[in-house]
Amino acid sequence: MPHDGHAYQTRVRYAEIDRMGVAYHSRYIEWYEAARTDMLRDRGFPYKALEERGIFLPVIELNNRFLKPVFYDELVTVYTSVEKITRLKLHLTYRVFGEANDQLRAEGYTIHCFINDRGEPFRVDPRVVQFISGEAEMP
Amino acid sequence: MPHDGHAYQTRVRYAEIDRMGVAYHSRYIEWYEAARTDMLRDRGFPYKALEERGIFLPVIELNNRFLKPVFYDELVTVYTSVEKITRLKLHLTYRVFGEANDQLRAEGYTIHCFINDRGEPFRVDPRVVQFISGEAEMP
Amino acid sequence: MPHDGHAYQTRVRYAEIDRMGVAYHSRYIEWYEAARTDMLRDRGFPYKALEERGIFLPVIELNNRFLKPVFYDELVTVYTSVEKITRLKLHLTYRVFGEANDQLRAEGYTIHCFINDRGEPFRVDPRVVQFISGEAEMP
Amino acid sequence: MPHDGHAYQTRVRYAEIDRMGVAYHSRYIEWYEAARTDMLRDRGFPYKALEERGIFLPVIELNNRFLKPVFYDELVTVYTSVEKITRLKLHLTYRVFGEANDQLRAEGYTIHCFINDRGEPFRVDPRVVQFISGEAEMP
Repeated sequence: MPHDGHAYQTRVRYAEIDRMGVAYHSRYIEWYEAARTDMLRDRGFPYKALEERGIFLPVIELNNRFLKPVFYDELVTVYTSVEKITRLKLHLTYRVFGEANDQLRAEGYTIHCFINDRGEPFRVDPRVVQFISGEAEMP
Repeated sequence: MPHDGHAYQTRVRYAEIDRMGVAYHSRYIEWYEAARTDMLRDRGFPYKALEERGIFLPVIELNNRFLKPVFYDELVTVYTSVEKITRLKLHLTYRVFGEANDQLRAEGYTIHCFINDRGEPFRVDPRVVQFISGEAEMP
Repeated sequence: MPHDGHAYQTRVRYAEIDRMGVAYHSRYIEWYEAARTDMLRDRGFPYKALEERGIFLPVIELNNRFLKPVFYDELVTVYTSVEKITRLKLHLTYRVFGEANDQLRAEGYTIHCFINDRGEPFRVDPRVVQFISGEAEMP
Repeated sequence: MPHDGHAYQTRVRYAEIDRMGVAYHSRYIEWYEAARTDMLRDRGFPYKALEERGIFLPVIELNNRFLKPVFYDELVTVYTSVEKITRLKLHLTYRVFGEANDQLRAEGYTIHCFINDRGEPFRVDPRVVQFISGEAEMP
Protein backbone atom coordinates (compact mmCIF):
# COMPACT_ATOMS: atom_id res chain seq x y z
CA MET A 1 0.00 0.00 0.00
CA PRO A 2 1.55 3.25 -1.05
CA HIS A 3 -0.12 5.30 1.70
CA ASP A 4 0.29 5.31 5.46
CA GLY A 5 -2.59 4.90 7.82
CA HIS A 6 -5.79 2.93 8.02
CA ALA A 7 -7.64 2.76 4.67
CA TYR A 8 -11.41 3.28 4.59
CA GLN A 9 -13.36 3.31 1.34
CA THR A 10 -16.67 4.93 0.50
CA ARG A 11 -18.47 5.65 -2.75
CA VAL A 12 -19.78 9.20 -3.22
CA ARG A 13 -23.60 9.17 -3.04
CA TYR A 14 -25.94 11.40 -5.01
CA ALA A 15 -27.15 12.67 -1.63
CA GLU A 16 -23.61 13.91 -0.98
CA ILE A 17 -23.02 16.04 -4.06
CA ASP A 18 -24.12 19.58 -4.77
CA ARG A 19 -25.02 21.57 -7.87
CA MET A 20 -21.38 21.57 -9.01
CA GLY A 21 -21.56 17.75 -9.16
CA VAL A 22 -18.89 17.36 -6.47
CA ALA A 23 -19.06 16.16 -2.87
CA TYR A 24 -20.42 18.85 -0.57
CA HIS A 25 -17.74 20.01 1.87
CA SER A 26 -19.42 18.98 5.15
CA ARG A 27 -19.74 15.38 3.90
CA TYR A 28 -15.98 14.87 4.21
CA ILE A 29 -16.43 15.35 7.95
CA GLU A 30 -18.93 12.45 8.03
CA TRP A 31 -16.48 10.28 6.08
CA TYR A 32 -13.75 11.03 8.62
CA GLU A 33 -16.05 9.83 11.39
CA ALA A 34 -16.72 6.59 9.50
CA ALA A 35 -12.97 6.23 8.79
CA ARG A 36 -11.85 6.60 12.41
CA THR A 37 -14.64 4.28 13.60
CA ASP A 38 -13.41 1.71 11.10
CA MET A 39 -9.83 2.16 12.29
CA LEU A 40 -10.85 1.60 15.93
CA ARG A 41 -12.85 -1.52 15.00
CA ASP A 42 -9.82 -2.80 13.09
CA ARG A 43 -7.71 -2.40 16.24
CA GLY A 44 -10.20 -4.52 18.14
CA PHE A 45 -11.75 -1.55 19.89
CA PRO A 46 -15.06 -0.47 18.36
CA TYR A 47 -16.19 3.01 19.35
CA LYS A 48 -19.39 1.39 20.60
CA ALA A 49 -17.34 -0.63 23.10
CA LEU A 50 -15.68 2.59 24.27
CA GLU A 51 -19.08 4.20 24.88
CA GLU A 52 -20.25 1.11 26.75
CA ARG A 53 -17.29 1.58 29.12
CA GLY A 54 -18.32 5.21 29.63
CA ILE A 55 -15.59 6.67 27.42
CA PHE A 56 -16.72 9.31 24.90
CA LEU A 57 -14.57 11.03 22.30
CA PRO A 58 -16.27 14.25 21.18
CA VAL A 59 -14.60 16.35 18.51
CA ILE A 60 -13.18 19.55 19.98
CA GLU A 61 -11.54 20.83 16.80
CA LEU A 62 -11.67 19.95 13.14
CA ASN A 63 -9.93 21.22 10.05
CA ASN A 64 -10.04 20.37 6.40
CA ARG A 65 -8.26 21.62 3.29
CA PHE A 66 -9.90 20.89 -0.07
CA LEU A 67 -7.29 20.46 -2.79
CA LYS A 68 -9.17 18.86 -5.68
CA PRO A 69 -12.86 17.98 -5.89
CA VAL A 70 -14.30 14.49 -5.49
CA PHE A 71 -17.03 13.58 -7.98
CA TYR A 72 -20.32 11.71 -7.85
CA ASP A 73 -19.93 7.92 -7.78
CA GLU A 74 -16.17 8.04 -7.20
CA LEU A 75 -14.74 5.44 -4.85
CA VAL A 76 -12.68 7.47 -2.41
CA THR A 77 -10.19 6.20 0.15
CA VAL A 78 -9.62 7.98 3.45
CA TYR A 79 -6.29 7.23 5.17
CA THR A 80 -6.48 7.84 8.92
CA SER A 81 -3.42 8.17 11.15
CA VAL A 82 -2.97 8.77 14.85
CA GLU A 83 -0.94 11.98 14.86
CA LYS A 84 -0.74 12.13 18.65
CA ILE A 85 -2.46 10.56 21.62
CA THR A 86 -2.24 11.21 25.35
CA ARG A 87 -4.45 10.12 28.25
CA LEU A 88 -6.45 13.34 27.69
CA LYS A 89 -6.59 13.92 23.95
CA LEU A 90 -6.53 12.22 20.57
CA HIS A 91 -5.31 13.94 17.41
CA LEU A 92 -6.09 12.20 14.10
CA THR A 93 -5.18 13.16 10.54
CA TYR A 94 -6.96 12.17 7.36
CA ARG A 95 -5.98 12.17 3.70
CA VAL A 96 -8.51 11.58 0.93
CA PHE A 97 -7.56 9.96 -2.38
CA GLY A 98 -9.69 9.30 -5.45
CA GLU A 99 -10.19 6.14 -7.45
CA ALA A 100 -6.78 6.12 -9.16
CA ASN A 101 -5.29 6.59 -5.68
CA ASP A 102 -2.69 8.99 -7.00
CA GLN A 103 -4.02 12.44 -6.28
CA LEU A 104 -4.48 13.90 -2.84
CA ARG A 105 -7.96 15.44 -2.89
CA ALA A 106 -8.21 16.72 0.68
CA GLU A 107 -6.49 16.53 4.02
CA GLY A 108 -7.77 17.27 7.45
CA TYR A 109 -7.58 16.58 11.13
CA THR A 110 -9.83 16.14 14.15
CA ILE A 111 -8.89 16.60 17.79
CA HIS A 112 -10.90 14.77 20.43
CA CYS A 113 -10.88 14.78 24.22
CA PHE A 114 -11.82 11.89 26.45
CA ILE A 115 -14.92 12.55 28.55
CA ASN A 116 -16.86 10.30 30.91
CA ASP A 117 -20.61 9.69 30.95
CA ARG A 118 -21.15 12.81 33.07
CA GLY A 119 -19.54 14.88 30.31
CA GLU A 120 -16.36 15.59 32.30
CA PRO A 121 -12.86 15.39 30.81
CA PHE A 122 -10.74 12.71 32.43
CA ARG A 123 -7.53 10.68 32.01
CA VAL A 124 -8.18 7.34 30.34
CA ASP A 125 -6.50 4.10 31.31
CA PRO A 126 -3.02 3.93 29.69
CA ARG A 127 -4.08 0.72 27.94
CA VAL A 128 -6.76 2.60 26.01
CA VAL A 129 -3.97 4.87 24.74
CA GLN A 130 -1.99 1.80 23.69
CA PHE A 131 -4.94 0.18 21.90
CA ILE A 132 -5.89 3.29 19.97
CA SER A 133 -2.29 4.03 19.02
CA GLY A 134 -1.94 0.46 17.78
CA GLU A 135 0.90 -0.29 20.22
CA ALA A 136 -1.00 -3.05 21.96
CA GLU A 137 -3.72 -5.43 20.95
CA MET A 138 -6.94 -6.03 22.82
CA PRO A 139 -6.61 -9.12 25.01
CA MET B 1 -53.91 32.48 5.11
CA PRO B 2 -54.99 30.55 2.07
CA HIS B 3 -53.73 27.21 3.35
CA ASP B 4 -54.83 25.03 6.25
CA GLY B 5 -52.45 23.79 8.88
CA HIS B 6 -49.47 25.08 10.77
CA ALA B 7 -47.05 27.07 8.57
CA TYR B 8 -43.30 26.46 8.90
CA GLN B 9 -40.79 28.22 6.67
CA THR B 10 -37.30 27.20 5.66
CA ARG B 11 -34.91 28.41 2.98
CA VAL B 12 -33.32 25.73 0.78
CA ARG B 13 -29.61 25.42 1.63
CA TYR B 14 -26.83 24.64 -0.80
CA ALA B 15 -26.17 21.56 1.36
CA GLU B 16 -29.69 20.38 0.52
CA ILE B 17 -29.56 20.49 -3.28
CA ASP B 18 -28.15 17.97 -5.71
CA ARG B 19 -26.58 18.12 -9.16
CA MET B 20 -29.95 19.00 -10.72
CA GLY B 21 -29.97 22.18 -8.58
CA VAL B 22 -33.09 21.09 -6.72
CA ALA B 23 -33.67 19.95 -3.14
CA TYR B 24 -32.61 16.32 -2.63
CA HIS B 25 -35.62 14.13 -1.85
CA SER B 26 -34.62 12.95 1.64
CA ARG B 27 -34.30 16.57 2.81
CA TYR B 28 -38.08 17.04 2.67
CA ILE B 29 -38.28 14.43 5.42
CA GLU B 30 -36.02 16.58 7.63
CA TRP B 31 -38.20 19.64 6.91
CA TYR B 32 -41.29 17.70 7.98
CA GLU B 33 -39.62 16.90 11.28
CA ALA B 34 -38.80 20.59 11.82
CA ALA B 35 -42.36 21.52 10.76
CA ARG B 36 -44.12 19.17 13.21
CA THR B 37 -41.73 20.19 16.02
CA ASP B 38 -42.63 23.81 15.32
CA MET B 39 -46.34 22.97 15.36
CA LEU B 40 -46.03 21.23 18.73
CA ARG B 41 -44.10 24.18 20.18
CA ASP B 42 -46.79 26.52 18.88
CA ARG B 43 -49.41 24.50 20.73
CA GLY B 44 -47.45 24.95 23.95
CA PHE B 45 -46.07 21.44 23.87
CA PRO B 46 -42.48 21.23 22.63
CA TYR B 47 -41.34 17.76 21.59
CA LYS B 48 -38.52 18.18 24.10
CA ALA B 49 -41.12 18.46 26.89
CA LEU B 50 -42.78 15.28 25.63
CA GLU B 51 -39.46 13.42 25.82
CA GLU B 52 -38.84 14.75 29.32
CA ARG B 53 -42.16 13.17 30.37
CA GLY B 54 -41.03 9.88 28.84
CA ILE B 55 -43.22 10.15 25.73
CA PHE B 56 -41.50 9.44 22.41
CA LEU B 57 -43.01 9.67 18.95
CA PRO B 58 -40.94 7.63 16.50
CA VAL B 59 -41.96 7.58 12.85
CA ILE B 60 -43.44 4.21 11.90
CA GLU B 61 -44.39 5.12 8.34
CA LEU B 62 -43.64 7.97 5.97
CA ASN B 63 -44.71 8.84 2.47
CA ASN B 64 -43.98 11.66 0.09
CA ARG B 65 -45.07 12.57 -3.41
CA PHE B 66 -42.90 15.03 -5.34
CA LEU B 67 -44.99 17.10 -7.73
CA LYS B 68 -42.69 19.96 -8.74
CA PRO B 69 -39.08 20.59 -7.71
CA VAL B 70 -37.95 23.09 -5.09
CA PHE B 71 -34.89 25.13 -6.03
CA TYR B 72 -31.79 26.37 -4.24
CA ASP B 73 -32.41 29.43 -2.06
CA GLU B 74 -36.20 29.22 -2.35
CA LEU B 75 -38.18 30.03 0.77
CA VAL B 76 -40.53 27.07 1.14
CA THR B 77 -43.52 26.78 3.45
CA VAL B 78 -44.57 23.44 4.92
CA TYR B 79 -48.21 23.25 6.12
CA THR B 80 -48.67 20.55 8.75
CA SER B 81 -52.06 19.17 9.76
CA VAL B 82 -53.15 16.55 12.24
CA GLU B 83 -54.97 14.06 10.02
CA LYS B 84 -55.87 11.76 12.88
CA ILE B 85 -54.80 11.19 16.47
CA THR B 86 -55.67 8.48 18.99
CA ARG B 87 -54.09 7.52 22.31
CA LEU B 88 -51.85 5.12 20.37
CA LYS B 89 -50.97 6.86 17.11
CA LEU B 90 -50.51 10.20 15.42
CA HIS B 91 -51.02 10.73 11.69
CA LEU B 92 -49.75 14.01 10.23
CA THR B 93 -49.95 15.37 6.70
CA TYR B 94 -47.66 17.93 5.06
CA ARG B 95 -47.95 20.12 2.00
CA VAL B 96 -44.99 22.06 0.61
CA PHE B 97 -45.41 25.34 -1.24
CA GLY B 98 -42.80 27.55 -2.87
CA GLU B 99 -42.13 31.24 -2.52
CA ALA B 100 -45.13 32.46 -4.50
CA ASN B 101 -47.21 30.13 -2.31
CA ASP B 102 -49.40 29.13 -5.23
CA GLN B 103 -48.02 25.83 -6.42
CA LEU B 104 -48.11 22.61 -4.46
CA ARG B 105 -44.62 21.17 -4.76
CA ALA B 106 -44.94 18.07 -2.63
CA GLU B 107 -47.25 16.37 -0.20
CA GLY B 108 -46.59 13.68 2.33
CA TYR B 109 -47.48 12.13 5.61
CA THR B 110 -45.87 10.57 8.67
CA ILE B 111 -47.44 8.12 11.10
CA HIS B 112 -46.06 7.95 14.63
CA CYS B 113 -46.78 5.74 17.60
CA PHE B 114 -46.43 6.72 21.23
CA ILE B 115 -43.73 4.78 23.07
CA ASN B 116 -42.41 5.11 26.60
CA ASP B 117 -38.76 5.36 27.67
CA ARG B 118 -38.44 1.56 27.65
CA GLY B 119 -39.38 1.59 23.98
CA GLU B 120 -42.81 0.04 24.54
CA PRO B 121 -46.00 1.27 22.82
CA PHE B 122 -48.53 2.63 25.29
CA ARG B 123 -51.73 4.71 25.54
CA VAL B 124 -50.98 8.35 26.29
CA ASP B 125 -53.02 10.50 28.63
CA PRO B 126 -56.13 11.80 26.81
CA ARG B 127 -54.97 15.36 27.50
CA VAL B 128 -51.85 14.79 25.36
CA VAL B 129 -54.22 13.87 22.53
CA GLN B 130 -56.16 17.08 23.11
CA PHE B 131 -53.04 19.26 23.20
CA ILE B 132 -51.56 17.82 20.02
CA SER B 133 -54.87 17.98 18.16
CA GLY B 134 -55.19 21.62 19.19
CA GLU B 135 -58.47 21.00 21.05
CA ALA B 136 -57.08 22.08 24.38
CA GLU B 137 -54.36 24.47 25.48
CA MET B 138 -51.58 23.65 27.87
CA PRO B 139 -52.51 24.87 31.35
CA MET C 1 -28.79 -15.98 -0.25
CA PRO C 2 -32.06 -16.21 1.61
CA HIS C 3 -33.40 -12.90 0.31
CA ASP C 4 -34.45 -11.78 -3.14
CA GLY C 5 -33.08 -8.72 -4.81
CA HIS C 6 -29.76 -6.92 -5.05
CA ALA C 7 -27.87 -6.79 -1.72
CA TYR C 8 -26.20 -3.55 -0.64
CA GLN C 9 -24.45 -3.22 2.71
CA THR C 10 -23.75 -0.15 4.80
CA ARG C 11 -22.64 0.33 8.38
CA VAL C 12 -24.67 2.80 10.47
CA ARG C 13 -22.59 5.93 11.12
CA TYR C 14 -22.67 8.04 14.27
CA ALA C 15 -23.75 10.90 11.99
CA GLU C 16 -26.83 8.86 11.11
CA ILE C 17 -28.20 8.14 14.58
CA ASP C 18 -30.30 10.32 16.84
CA ARG C 19 -30.74 10.71 20.58
CA MET C 20 -32.48 7.34 20.82
CA GLY C 21 -29.27 5.71 19.50
CA VAL C 22 -31.02 4.44 16.37
CA ALA C 23 -30.74 5.43 12.71
CA TYR C 24 -32.67 8.64 11.99
CA HIS C 25 -35.60 7.94 9.66
CA SER C 26 -34.55 10.11 6.69
CA ARG C 27 -31.21 8.27 6.48
CA TYR C 28 -32.94 5.14 5.18
CA ILE C 29 -33.89 7.17 2.14
CA GLU C 30 -30.20 7.92 1.47
CA TRP C 31 -29.38 4.21 1.84
CA TYR C 32 -32.03 3.34 -0.71
CA GLU C 33 -30.41 5.74 -3.17
CA ALA C 34 -27.01 4.10 -2.60
CA ALA C 35 -28.63 0.65 -2.90
CA ARG C 36 -30.34 1.30 -6.24
CA THR C 37 -27.20 2.98 -7.62
CA ASP C 38 -25.25 -0.12 -6.64
CA MET C 39 -27.84 -2.36 -8.32
CA LEU C 40 -27.62 -0.37 -11.56
CA ARG C 41 -23.81 -0.51 -11.51
CA ASP C 42 -24.03 -4.26 -10.96
CA ARG C 43 -26.18 -4.58 -14.06
CA GLY C 44 -23.52 -2.77 -16.07
CA PHE C 45 -25.43 0.46 -16.15
CA PRO C 46 -24.16 3.04 -13.63
CA TYR C 47 -26.57 5.91 -12.93
CA LYS C 48 -23.75 8.23 -13.98
CA ALA C 49 -23.80 6.65 -17.45
CA LEU C 50 -27.56 7.20 -17.60
CA GLU C 51 -27.12 10.91 -16.80
CA GLU C 52 -24.39 11.19 -19.43
CA ARG C 53 -26.91 9.93 -22.00
CA GLY C 54 -29.38 12.56 -20.82
CA ILE C 55 -31.60 10.16 -18.86
CA PHE C 56 -32.55 11.25 -15.35
CA LEU C 57 -34.55 9.29 -12.80
CA PRO C 58 -35.96 11.68 -10.18
CA VAL C 59 -37.99 10.24 -7.32
CA ILE C 60 -41.68 11.09 -7.70
CA GLU C 61 -42.91 9.11 -4.73
CA LEU C 62 -41.33 7.40 -1.75
CA ASN C 63 -42.65 5.35 1.11
CA ASN C 64 -41.12 3.65 4.10
CA ARG C 65 -42.42 1.57 6.98
CA PHE C 66 -40.21 1.24 10.06
CA LEU C 67 -40.73 -2.11 11.77
CA LYS C 68 -37.78 -2.40 14.14
CA PRO C 69 -34.98 0.09 14.78
CA VAL C 70 -31.46 -0.13 13.37
CA PHE C 71 -28.68 0.67 15.83
CA TYR C 72 -25.39 2.55 15.70
CA ASP C 73 -22.56 0.56 14.09
CA GLU C 74 -24.86 -2.19 12.80
CA LEU C 75 -24.05 -3.56 9.38
CA VAL C 76 -27.35 -3.38 7.54
CA THR C 77 -28.25 -4.97 4.21
CA VAL C 78 -30.71 -3.36 1.82
CA TYR C 79 -32.32 -5.72 -0.72
CA THR C 80 -33.52 -3.83 -3.79
CA SER C 81 -35.97 -5.30 -6.33
CA VAL C 82 -37.51 -3.96 -9.51
CA GLU C 83 -41.21 -4.16 -8.72
CA LYS C 84 -42.27 -2.79 -12.10
CA ILE C 85 -40.69 -0.93 -15.00
CA THR C 86 -42.18 0.62 -18.12
CA ARG C 87 -40.71 3.04 -20.65
CA LEU C 88 -42.08 5.87 -18.49
CA LYS C 89 -41.63 4.79 -14.89
CA LEU C 90 -39.57 2.68 -12.52
CA HIS C 91 -40.93 1.24 -9.29
CA LEU C 92 -38.39 -0.19 -6.83
CA THR C 93 -38.89 -1.89 -3.48
CA TYR C 94 -36.42 -2.12 -0.61
CA ARG C 95 -36.16 -4.34 2.45
CA VAL C 96 -33.69 -3.63 5.26
CA PHE C 97 -32.19 -6.39 7.37
CA GLY C 98 -29.80 -6.16 10.32
CA GLU C 99 -26.55 -7.94 10.98
CA ALA C 100 -28.04 -11.34 11.78
CA ASN C 101 -30.00 -10.99 8.54
CA ASP C 102 -33.08 -12.54 10.08
CA GLN C 103 -35.29 -9.67 11.07
CA LEU C 104 -36.97 -7.31 8.66
CA ARG C 105 -36.29 -3.84 10.04
CA ALA C 106 -37.95 -1.68 7.41
CA GLU C 107 -39.46 -1.86 3.96
CA GLY C 108 -40.10 0.84 1.46
CA TYR C 109 -40.44 1.81 -2.16
CA THR C 110 -39.51 4.60 -4.55
CA ILE C 111 -41.19 5.45 -7.83
CA HIS C 112 -39.18 7.29 -10.47
CA CYS C 113 -40.03 8.74 -13.85
CA PHE C 114 -37.67 9.07 -16.79
CA ILE C 115 -36.94 12.68 -17.73
CA ASN C 116 -34.58 14.14 -20.32
CA ASP C 117 -32.03 16.91 -19.78
CA ARG C 118 -34.70 19.57 -20.36
CA GLY C 119 -36.65 18.13 -17.42
CA GLU C 120 -39.41 16.66 -19.61
CA PRO C 121 -40.86 13.16 -19.10
CA PHE C 122 -40.21 10.89 -22.08
CA ARG C 123 -40.25 7.23 -23.16
CA VAL C 124 -36.86 5.60 -22.84
CA ASP C 125 -35.38 3.17 -25.31
CA PRO C 126 -36.81 -0.34 -24.66
CA ARG C 127 -33.26 -1.60 -24.13
CA VAL C 128 -32.88 0.67 -21.07
CA VAL C 129 -35.96 -1.05 -19.66
CA GLN C 130 -34.36 -4.42 -20.33
CA PHE C 131 -31.03 -3.49 -18.75
CA ILE C 132 -32.60 -2.07 -15.58
CA SER C 133 -34.98 -5.02 -15.21
CA GLY C 134 -32.02 -7.37 -15.55
CA GLU C 135 -33.50 -9.05 -18.64
CA ALA C 136 -30.61 -8.07 -20.87
CA GLU C 137 -26.97 -7.35 -20.29
CA MET C 138 -25.12 -4.31 -21.52
CA PRO C 139 -23.32 -5.14 -24.76
CA MET D 1 -26.58 43.82 19.56
CA PRO D 2 -23.66 42.75 21.69
CA HIS D 3 -21.93 40.76 18.95
CA ASP D 4 -20.21 41.80 15.74
CA GLY D 5 -21.08 40.36 12.40
CA HIS D 6 -24.17 39.27 10.56
CA ALA D 7 -26.61 37.33 12.77
CA TYR D 8 -28.27 34.18 11.44
CA GLN D 9 -30.58 32.06 13.56
CA THR D 10 -31.46 28.40 13.32
CA ARG D 11 -33.17 25.96 15.67
CA VAL D 12 -31.40 22.64 16.25
CA ARG D 13 -33.38 19.84 14.56
CA TYR D 14 -33.76 16.29 15.81
CA ALA D 15 -32.09 15.23 12.55
CA GLU D 16 -29.04 17.23 13.62
CA ILE D 17 -28.36 15.70 17.03
CA ASP D 18 -26.59 12.50 17.92
CA ARG D 19 -26.82 9.96 20.73
CA MET D 20 -25.35 12.46 23.20
CA GLY D 21 -28.37 14.72 22.52
CA VAL D 22 -26.16 17.49 21.10
CA ALA D 23 -25.70 18.83 17.59
CA TYR D 24 -23.48 16.54 15.50
CA HIS D 25 -20.23 18.29 14.59
CA SER D 26 -20.58 18.35 10.80
CA ARG D 27 -23.93 20.13 11.08
CA TYR D 28 -22.19 23.34 12.21
CA ILE D 29 -20.58 23.41 8.78
CA GLU D 30 -24.02 23.41 7.15
CA TRP D 31 -25.14 26.24 9.44
CA TYR D 32 -22.11 28.30 8.41
CA GLU D 33 -23.11 27.88 4.77
CA ALA D 34 -26.64 29.05 5.57
CA ALA D 35 -25.21 31.94 7.64
CA ARG D 36 -22.89 33.27 4.92
CA THR D 37 -25.61 32.89 2.28
CA ASP D 38 -27.89 34.95 4.51
CA MET D 39 -25.18 37.58 4.96
CA LEU D 40 -24.67 37.88 1.20
CA ARG D 41 -28.44 38.20 0.62
CA ASP D 42 -28.56 40.90 3.28
CA ARG D 43 -25.88 42.83 1.41
CA GLY D 44 -28.03 42.69 -1.72
CA PHE D 45 -25.92 40.00 -3.32
CA PRO D 46 -27.46 36.51 -3.07
CA TYR D 47 -25.06 33.66 -3.74
CA LYS D 48 -27.50 32.55 -6.43
CA ALA D 49 -26.91 35.87 -8.26
CA LEU D 50 -23.16 35.29 -8.00
CA GLU D 51 -23.51 31.86 -9.61
CA GLU D 52 -25.69 33.30 -12.36
CA ARG D 53 -22.83 35.67 -13.20
CA GLY D 54 -20.46 32.72 -13.35
CA ILE D 55 -18.81 33.38 -10.00
CA PHE D 56 -18.46 30.37 -7.68
CA LEU D 57 -17.07 30.37 -4.16
CA PRO D 58 -16.01 26.85 -3.22
CA VAL D 59 -14.63 26.22 0.27
CA ILE D 60 -10.90 25.53 0.14
CA GLU D 61 -10.36 25.33 3.88
CA LEU D 62 -12.55 25.07 6.94
CA ASN D 63 -11.92 24.96 10.65
CA ASN D 64 -14.07 24.70 13.71
CA ARG D 65 -13.45 24.64 17.45
CA PHE D 66 -16.19 23.22 19.65
CA LEU D 67 -16.20 24.90 23.07
CA LYS D 68 -19.56 23.93 24.57
CA PRO D 69 -22.27 21.71 23.12
CA VAL D 70 -25.47 22.93 21.48
CA PHE D 71 -28.60 20.98 22.46
CA TYR D 72 -31.68 19.74 20.67
CA ASP D 73 -34.27 22.46 20.03
CA GLU D 74 -31.96 25.32 21.03
CA LEU D 75 -32.21 28.47 18.99
CA VAL D 76 -28.61 29.19 18.02
CA THR D 77 -27.23 32.37 16.48
CA VAL D 78 -24.28 32.30 14.11
CA TYR D 79 -22.38 35.60 13.75
CA THR D 80 -20.52 35.80 10.44
CA SER D 81 -17.75 38.33 9.74
CA VAL D 82 -15.57 39.01 6.72
CA GLU D 83 -12.11 38.50 8.15
CA LYS D 84 -10.35 39.30 4.87
CA ILE D 85 -11.27 39.60 1.22
CA THR D 86 -9.16 40.08 -1.90
CA ARG D 87 -9.98 39.68 -5.60
CA LEU D 88 -8.86 36.03 -5.28
CA LYS D 89 -10.02 34.83 -1.88
CA LEU D 90 -12.61 35.29 0.85
CA HIS D 91 -11.94 34.48 4.50
CA LEU D 92 -14.98 34.35 6.80
CA THR D 93 -15.20 33.74 10.54
CA TYR D 94 -18.17 32.40 12.48
CA ARG D 95 -19.11 32.41 16.15
CA VAL D 96 -22.01 30.35 17.50
CA PHE D 97 -24.03 31.45 20.53
CA GLY D 98 -26.90 29.67 22.29
CA GLU D 99 -30.31 30.91 23.26
CA ALA D 100 -29.23 33.13 26.14
CA ASN D 101 -26.67 34.62 23.73
CA ASP D 102 -24.03 34.80 26.42
CA GLN D 103 -21.86 31.75 25.92
CA LEU D 104 -19.64 31.14 22.95
CA ARG D 105 -20.33 27.56 21.91
CA ALA D 106 -18.11 27.26 18.84
CA GLU D 107 -16.00 29.33 16.52
CA GLY D 108 -14.76 28.57 13.06
CA TYR D 109 -13.70 29.88 9.71
CA THR D 110 -14.01 29.07 6.02
CA ILE D 111 -11.69 30.19 3.24
CA HIS D 112 -13.08 30.38 -0.29
CA CYS D 113 -11.53 31.14 -3.65
CA PHE D 114 -13.29 32.71 -6.61
CA ILE D 115 -13.62 30.39 -9.58
CA ASN D 116 -15.39 30.84 -12.92
CA ASP D 117 -17.81 28.43 -14.58
CA ARG D 118 -14.92 26.48 -16.10
CA GLY D 119 -13.62 25.81 -12.58
CA GLU D 120 -10.62 28.11 -12.94
CA PRO D 121 -9.49 30.56 -10.24
CA PHE D 122 -9.74 34.18 -11.39
CA ARG D 123 -9.70 37.76 -10.09
CA VAL D 124 -13.20 39.08 -9.51
CA ASP D 125 -14.35 42.58 -10.33
CA PRO D 126 -13.26 44.96 -7.50
CA ARG D 127 -16.92 45.88 -6.99
CA VAL D 128 -17.72 42.30 -5.98
CA VAL D 129 -15.06 42.68 -3.28
CA GLN D 130 -16.71 45.90 -2.13
CA PHE D 131 -20.20 44.39 -2.04
CA ILE D 132 -19.17 41.32 -0.07
CA SER D 133 -17.07 43.34 2.37
CA GLY D 134 -20.03 45.64 2.93
CA GLU D 135 -18.11 48.72 1.74
CA ALA D 136 -20.48 49.39 -1.13
CA GLU D 137 -24.11 48.67 -1.78
CA MET D 138 -25.51 47.04 -4.85
CA PRO D 139 -26.73 49.70 -7.31
